[in-house]
Amino acid sequence: MSEPLRPQPLRLGIAGLGTVGIGVLKILRKEAAMLTARTGREITITAVSARNRSKDRGVPLEGYAWEDDPVSLATRDDVDIFVELMGGSDGPAKAATEAALNAGKDVVTANKAMLAIHGQELAELAESKGCVIRFEAAVAGGIPVVKALTEGLAGNNITRVMGVMNGTCNYILTRMEATGSSYEELFDEAGKLGYLEADPNLDVGGIDAGHKLSLLASVAFGSRVAFDKMELEGIQRITLEDIRAAADMGFRIKLLGVSQMTGRGLEQRMAPCLVPATSPLGQLEGGTNMVVLEGDAVGQIVLRGAGAGEGPTASAVLSDICDVARGFRLPVFGQPATTLRETNGAVSNTPAPYYLRLTLQDKPGAMAKVASVLGEAGVSIHRMRQYDHEGAGAPVLIVTHKTPRAALDLAIAGMSGTGVVEGEPVALRIETV
Amino acid sequence: MSEPLRPQPLRLGIAGLGTVGIGVLKILRKEAAMLTARTGREITITAVSARNRSKDRGVPLEGYAWEDDPVSLATRDDVDIFVELMGGSDGPAKAATEAALNAGKDVVTANKAMLAIHGQELAELAESKGCVIRFEAAVAGGIPVVKALTEGLAGNNITRVMGVMNGTCNYILTRMEATGSSYEELFDEAGKLGYLEADPNLDVGGIDAGHKLSLLASVAFGSRVAFDKMELEGIQRITLEDIRAAADMGFRIKLLGVSQMTGRGLEQRMAPCLVPATSPLGQLEGGTNMVVLEGDAVGQIVLRGAGAGEGPTASAVLSDICDVARGFRLPVFGQPATTLRETNGAVSNTPAPYYLRLTLQDKPGAMAKVASVLGEAGVSIHRMRQYDHEGAGAPVLIVTHKTPRAALDLAIAGMSGTGVVEGEPVALRIETV
Repeated sequence: MSEPLRPQPLRLGIAGLGTVGIGVLKILRKEAAMLTARTGREITITAVSARNRSKDRGVPLEGYAWEDDPVSLATRDDVDIFVELMGGSDGPAKAATEAALNAGKDVVTANKAMLAIHGQELAELAESKGCVIRFEAAVAGGIPVVKALTEGLAGNNITRVMGVMNGTCNYILTRMEATGSSYEELFDEAGKLGYLEADPNLDVGGIDAGHKLSLLASVAFGSRVAFDKMELEGIQRITLEDIRAAADMGFRIKLLGVSQMTGRGLEQRMAPCLVPATSPLGQLEGGTNMVVLEGDAVGQIVLRGAGAGEGPTASAVLSDICDVARGFRLPVFGQPATTLRETNGAVSNTPAPYYLRLTLQDKPGAMAKVASVLGEAGVSIHRMRQYDHEGAGAPVLIVTHKTPRAALDLAIAGMSGTGVVEGEPVALRIETV
Repeated sequence: MSEPLRPQPLRLGIAGLGTVGIGVLKILRKEAAMLTARTGREITITAVSARNRSKDRGVPLEGYAWEDDPVSLATRDDVDIFVELMGGSDGPAKAATEAALNAGKDVVTANKAMLAIHGQELAELAESKGCVIRFEAAVAGGIPVVKALTEGLAGNNITRVMGVMNGTCNYILTRMEATGSSYEELFDEAGKLGYLEADPNLDVGGIDAGHKLSLLASVAFGSRVAFDKMELEGIQRITLEDIRAAADMGFRIKLLGVSQMTGRGLEQRMAPCLVPATSPLGQLEGGTNMVVLEGDAVGQIVLRGAGAGEGPTASAVLSDICDVARGFRLPVFGQPATTLRETNGAVSNTPAPYYLRLTLQDKPGAMAKVASVLGEAGVSIHRMRQYDHEGAGAPVLIVTHKTPRAALDLAIAGMSGTGVVEGEPVALRIETV
């Protein structure tokens, strides 16, 4: 630190010039002096790559070499860090990342899908080559949560990680409550506003948020990324009725991820849940993300910020670039990939109260049959409400006392045999965080 | 990263075995394997130092060398990091820190007072010796806020930093509202509970929180620590009347720090403020701290967590130790100390609404005189309320429209000349964050 500047500039190759890529470019161009003051090193862009060379992106690109092929970009001799902002779990993003690592380049990426699916393999490759992969931008946008977990809470046994990390789902759910529009109407609106991924199921199916949670779980618990072992449920079955019933009882519905280490293994679930309307999680609006980290020494830390967008995501990419420029090097998931524990995919069975919505046929004794099935499964009813209805089926809402999920699933399975329940009941966990 | 373990253990010398020091010892003893897995290096304790050797601290100390003199501890050949947990801006803490740096040791400290007053000088010394000083534990307990600012938001121009960072003040203020007890009663209660520093003015005078804000301002704005240029006001003059009047209007009173870079220079103020009761800051209870960071790219990031206590503070100390073990080295305040800008101590004059409490003599025309003084200073009244009263003086509460502080100060100065205002009015800024 006594030398004023390190001799060599840090040279970036940036692949992907969408919203985030252009955001990163803008900051690097505008704040070169600030970044050098902070990292002790000049940070330059050598080359860029994107699908369409001729598109006007509002930023001059003449000063940078152009590569049509991201693999060529990633392996250039004059590139030190390959900045991967293309997205997609496989294809060019993965090919170029592997090429970069094999060529001894560090990688900074915003690609949650690629790391959620190929994280272990890529981390082992990186570490065998002495390279780093940094992915702050892949989780919760501008919130420096990977850093908080991996470095800020390095002295803790992490006990639980929770988060609302998909802005599109949160937008749809909060707008349903605010406007009284249906899920389908707001899904269409989100599409028109450009809030949905090309495959909308990535958002509303909880997959995108699940990818993020799987990465946080790995750094939190020293376990291998195991997105394939996550319990995953989207928001597609949430109705206005659910939103209103939850609100009546003082709750809001959020697509909430929870990951915790239990005696039976690592639980990971991403599913719509009821949270108290007045809690910090309940008060989250629109695209804001919130992550809750719990450690044995620190207690509970809550982080809130924008979960997407040009500025916030570029801010996270720059944080990773600055760390590399400062010479900070650590294993991809906080400890060497070969030492990460195998994840067994424990199904979460920590008892919790549940919200249950089912449609009951209008027959004498129907409610008694449902109550009996619940009782036999060991699920006790805390509150119940039957709504006025038109047509054949009567909506019934039940809030249970704390129950293991297995008991609830047993009861739900038993309901089809009663002959009085229509369709599949909706069951949402109530988190009283 | 390809080698499994670095050869040499990192050896600590810990000075100060109070709550935090013992918390750090416990984690180092219990989690040695975890810390080695995360940092790639064994972390050991060589020697300890405290005032009283014979005191039973509930942790065996036989395995560590004992030093009566922290300076001797700090300069031992078998110590790599001097961990300073004694406290106090000068005296042994400063002497031992200087000795450590002069001997080429890195320093990890929780000492906000020492850095707020001598930070520039110590940072210059550290950097001239190629050493680091880390101080995550000095600000907001377990919340990794120094790391978030210095590293996580390194790509941002920080525009504003705010925080509620003194648990004792927040305890007194929230208990006044909850119990209806007076400031004096709760001050005594806080003392009995051990929540007050030996010099209580450090807490209730806002000095401790001000020290923390001055450190955050330095890393946020690349400016020299300038605690001496902070506007500082404690909570001693807050009455139950203020708490209740604020609550009536939908606000809570918090000791809030705000630091922002303006065209006129760096504004830093630590003072009781009114914040919306339903806002995240308004809902903070007891010892919980909250810090709000705003950057041009990231927007607003909010961090919440325990601001003090054995576990949270030890967690922050361990974060710094792990960073050093991982080889992360950066200048003390995020950029070289010699490049930090001089702070001119701009008085904050950004217009804001204010809450004003004054005691009016029961004379005809008294209110008109006050209104006239306010009007002449250019301060316009948004709401006003006069309470029933016994005795001579009538409490009057005024909420102004947005006004520069200078105009308000002019009005307050003018009030003494009216002959109808008793004592000094209380003026609290309303922050609508």
